[in-house]
Amino acid sequence: MQLLKDKILTDGRLLDGYVLKVDNFLNHQLDVALLDAMGAEFARRFAGVKVDKILTVEASGIAVAVMAARHFGNVPVVFAKKTESLTLDKDAYESDVYSFTKQKTYRVRVSRRYLSAGEQVLVLDDFLANGHAACGLIDIVRQAGAEVAGVGIVIEKGFQSGRALIEEAGVSRVESLAILKSIAEGKIEFA
Amino acid sequence: MQLLKDKILTDGRLLDGYVLKVDNFLNHQLDVALLDAMGAEFARRFAGVKVDKILTVEASGIAVAVMAARHFGNVPVVFAKKTESLTLDKDAYESDVYSFTKQKTYRVRVSRRYLSAGEQVLVLDDFLANGHAACGLIDIVRQAGAEVAGVGIVIEKGFQSGRALIEEAGVSRVESLAILKSIAEGKIEFA
Repeated sequence: MQLLKDKILTDGRLLDGYVLKVDNFLNHQLDVALLDAMGAEFARRFAGVKVDKILTVEASGIAVAVMAARHFGNVPVVFAKKTESLTLDKDAYESDVYSFTKQKTYRVRVSRRYLSAGEQVLVLDDFLANGHAACGLIDIVRQAGAEVAGVGIVIEKGFQSGRALIEEAGVSRVESLAILKSIAEGKIEFA
Repeated sequence: MQLLKDKILTDGRLLDGYVLKVDNFLNHQLDVALLDAMGAEFARRFAGVKVDKILTVEASGIAVAVMAARHFGNVPVVFAKKTESLTLDKDAYESDVYSFTKQKTYRVRVSRRYLSAGEQVLVLDDFLANGHAACGLIDIVRQAGAEVAGVGIVIEKGFQSGRALIEEAGVSRVESLAILKSIAEGKIEFA
């Protein structure tokens, strides 16, 4: 998606020359017009795919998901909650996710009320790196007896193994609006 | 706002007869069409007020803020991050908020990059109870030398002191889309 790639190049910041920060428009401050355009692009890419519900994870995924939902006929959005509590909540579907960034495991949790067997669920998130968060959401969808209609990502780090992990989990439809091929010497290249 | 009040009565759940849960449409699963209508209503109520930016706090405030921003000419949204770390971040504006629900203090934090002196900032949040979260956001706006254009709330617990606390902080313009007058014996009354 050209608009997004341009925004990454103009407004993204590289920390230490290789860590991309997009908190100017995606993770802290939010560019609402861009989010809307991204939602329309997700709808275009998943045209013809039945989507009953969109699942994401707090916090940065929420803006992406609600703005996208408008372009999928206002389907309900559910955001998984992150918790460090490892006590089992019997009213919820849960999956453990290891975060390389934070070097610790957290739990994602969705109330059983808000996912049902047979639903077609589109998983959306802002970033795809090692794929652990997306696979946690896929796991939760399946625990509910629902099906993963696809995975939509705003920015994929193409040099990490996230896409392979999602495909190994049996989800073939992964759509990323921008795929980073490399970040080297302060320069971003797209796939 | 009648649509919201109706939704609270049909879809809200009362725990122990007096704690209102709206995670069916506002805090966990999100009703996107309703969020859009709420955004339009905020724009109607703050018509004539200059709004350069919308500030909210993760996680539940994000959906409310981005959907509202569309009705304020796609102004940028900034969401404050919650952290339990009490180490000072010199690149951020910070304020401490005591949560009665969780019986602990957390810190809300906004990068200095995303609030500027002179900006007119509308503070939006999903709930107003004791007002500590809203006052934390007001504090942050003022640290930046920006001005609070008003405070918009989805559901106000009118039987708690939040509104008074915000007014004491010198913000006279508080708009709540639904004000709960009382919850007694499993029955909700609006103001």
